[in-house]
Amino acid sequence: MSAFTLPQKVRFQHCDPAGIVFYPRYFEMVTATVEEWFAQRLGVPFETLHGPLGAAVPTASISVDFHAPSRLGDVLEFRLRPTRIGRSSVRLAIDASCAGEQRLSLESTLVFTREGASKPDSWPEDIRARIARELVEAVTGDA
Amino acid sequence: MSAFTLPQKVRFQHCDPAGIVFYPRYFEMVTATVEEWFAQRLGVPFETLHGPLGAAVPTASISVDFHAPSRLGDVLEFRLRPTRIGRSSVRLAIDASCAGEQRLSLESTLVFTREGASKPDSWPEDIRARIARELVEAVTGDA
Amino acid sequence: MSAFTLPQKVRFQHCDPAGIVFYPRYFEMVTATVEEWFAQRLGVPFETLHGPLGAAVPTASISVDFHAPSRLGDVLEFRLRPTRIGRSSVRLAIDASCAGEQRLSLESTLVFTREGASKPDSWPEDIRARIARELVEAVTGDA
Amino acid sequence: MSAFTLPQKVRFQHCDPAGIVFYPRYFEMVTATVEEWFAQRLGVPFETLHGPLGAAVPTASISVDFHAPSRLGDVLEFRLRPTRIGRSSVRLAIDASCAGEQRLSLESTLVFTREGASKPDSWPEDIRARIARELVEAVTGDA
Repeated sequence: MSAFTLPQKVRFQHCDPAGIVFYPRYFEMVTATVEEWFAQRLGVPFETLHGPLGAAVPTASISVDFHAPSRLGDVLEFRLRPTRIGRSSVRLAIDASCAGEQRLSLESTLVFTREGASKPDSWPEDIRARIARELVEAVTGDA
Repeated sequence: MSAFTLPQKVRFQHCDPAGIVFYPRYFEMVTATVEEWFAQRLGVPFETLHGPLGAAVPTASISVDFHAPSRLGDVLEFRLRPTRIGRSSVRLAIDASCAGEQRLSLESTLVFTREGASKPDSWPEDIRARIARELVEAVTGDA
Repeated sequence: MSAFTLPQKVRFQHCDPAGIVFYPRYFEMVTATVEEWFAQRLGVPFETLHGPLGAAVPTASISVDFHAPSRLGDVLEFRLRPTRIGRSSVRLAIDASCAGEQRLSLESTLVFTREGASKPDSWPEDIRARIARELVEAVTGDA
Repeated sequence: MSAFTLPQKVRFQHCDPAGIVFYPRYFEMVTATVEEWFAQRLGVPFETLHGPLGAAVPTASISVDFHAPSRLGDVLEFRLRPTRIGRSSVRLAIDASCAGEQRLSLESTLVFTREGASKPDSWPEDIRARIARELVEAVTGDA
């Protein structure tokens, strides 16, 4: 299994008067990438996480470099891999590129919480196991 | 003259299904803070910057820690101070707090560009002078 | 007491590559206007409505005409008045203008709901009374 | 050729504290539907329209009914058909449904403009011809 990727098209709604992606809109694409990774790789769609599980995964920190601007119509390839798992957190490395040009790269830390998104809680065992598997594969298999 | 501050109210549009601010919306508030700093302290409203000046100040990097969640109705006090000025860039420290509790703190680097927001260009002298003045005051006057 | 008004500045985040307000962003300003009307005129801030009251006021329909474009830096004066109250709904007329030029006008219907925003419920008596008072004043006092 | 449809998934970014789609976010999905219709059916991607053509298609009016709420994870099927073409405008009927339940239906009028999105201009002949063809098919072929 390779690194998780999600193509996303730059739409009118993402662009600013300078004709490039307004950077807060990138974070909506980043969130969509995280959502799909949870659904497709961890087996926990956000509607399950926020519904029956009564949980949430708020972002505790995020650090981004914007390497080059993106324009209307560009199809960005988002790539996500976990780099570290803690008792109640996970560290992710995400980047986006278009036609081989890297547009942004970031590291973020997400925290597993229950009941109102305030206190960190331990990962449920099944989610932890799937993240751990992804982590190993990101290290060993994705050259 | 004290540090630049801008109060912003957490509205329905900022909140997610967990009832707290969805973090990409914070960046809209951060952008509004930067806009008002440019208008009120540097004398360059964004409509002038992006209009007659044909310039832009895209964000090159941003690093944020989210310390505590914000909820509907909270009034967040955003505080901005420059920490370094380069030939074509400025480094900003921004934080937001509510009733004395810090909610987020960040450092970002903005780059001055012309013509399509792609190539960094030197700050115009008058803007550079005003940023430099703010920088000195942030260091000396804002205990 | 006059019609309820709320000034809102057109920011970078509202504007599209054509340099004018991207119309979905107007609805965020409309929502902010409704929020402030509930807080200031009906005595029910949204944090109370969505919190202790366990209620919501989803929009059932909205019909808008965009008369002229708005640009970065424009300060729009939003004006709201109720035009009809039902058992569980209220009809609002809202417009926005800048320096005397009307930019948009709309009519919307909001519905009072409880528990998951699905079934319409009767207005609580105190809220109904305040809307009714606003309705009378909108008809009689706001020439 | 059948009616133009575009499936769009309800994501975390679209939902409000009541757990349902915040209605301004629907308009981003509507805009994406219009963009893809222009690209796939009219042969004019928005990057061409707003780039080389120097044109825009601002929304002049829109009237929407929200029939039922949408929730996180729902896949909405957006359907678009033109209902009338004018010298410089087009009228569209758009609806969205999920698993056979209609969620919203709307009518909007878009205007073709050049140079700063302020004055309506006649449709270029090739675009007009393609809209006319879509119009006929919407009337005759899409039972």
